[in-house]
Amino acid sequence: MVTTVTLKDALIDSAKEVFETMVFMALAESDPVDLSGVTLLGSITFKGDMEGCLGICCDEACARTIAANMLGLDPDEGIGEEDVSDAMGEIANMVMGALKARIQDEVGTIEVSIPSVVQGRELKSNRGEGTCMIKVSVNIEEEFSAELSLLFRLHQD
Amino acid sequence: MVTTVTLKDALIDSAKEVFETMVFMALAESDPVDLSGVTLLGSITFKGDMEGCLGICCDEACARTIAANMLGLDPDEGIGEEDVSDAMGEIANMVMGALKARIQDEVGTIEVSIPSVVQGRELKSNRGEGTCMIKVSVNIEEEFSAELSLLFRLHQD
Repeated sequence: MVTTVTLKDALIDSAKEVFETMVFMALAESDPVDLSGVTLLGSITFKGDMEGCLGICCDEACARTIAANMLGLDPDEGIGEEDVSDAMGEIANMVMGALKARIQDEVGTIEVSIPSVVQGRELKSNRGEGTCMIKVSVNIEEEFSAELSLLFRLHQD
Repeated sequence: MVTTVTLKDALIDSAKEVFETMVFMALAESDPVDLSGVTLLGSITFKGDMEGCLGICCDEACARTIAANMLGLDPDEGIGEEDVSDAMGEIANMVMGALKARIQDEVGTIEVSIPSVVQGRELKSNRGEGTCMIKVSVNIEEEFSAELSLLFRLHQD
């Protein structure tokens, strides 16, 4: 049976793996961070035996660096807003893929949708009735702060 | 062939139908609105021959009234944050269902995921490379302002 503790660990491990191998950045759990300025939230929903939404939220400088590393460019090399948006969606998609691989034997079917990206201040993923939420603050390359979130509901017996 | 114009009309008609029949509120296209305060964005992604994300964004008072009407309660009757969140997700889900019914004969397969809800200030759905965006400002019951958005990409021949 999957538990909130194992899910939290699987989420952190998945994010670490994706950040290290795909955008060459070290990621580690941190104390709670302040993300009240302008941030980008890349998120992706999933349904099946477990349904919910995985999100990763960080500020623009962090998102730009993720995009630059994904594209093999320098962060100052004029990366467009659309590229930054694509990168945030793609990183959410990849973390979700890594998480799915870790938990699907225990959870059952997980059908992943496509990512979407929202920008704003004081962003907060809202929880519906009966939904659990895991939030993990992380630092990336000890330079940036970000927050991983996993909202979920299990339909297992 | 589906066009941006027909999609915009289908989006407005879908929202009108859902608001009138499910939450008993009149909805009409309006001049651009200011939604820079705290707002809620209910959104839902879809993939297939057309992929993208449909969103509806409004302020808390509007979201609370939508939730109250959906639940058959008075907006002042202490509706919880989770109920408001569920209502915003459900309204996005229903508008997406109504839109899918209107366009799927022309578009082909559209596989809809589950909704998610984000809260924040100055919310903005970000567009990736090669994605079209339709934005429609609406007023609801001439009391509230909201914004419908449809980001999409067609995979048709």
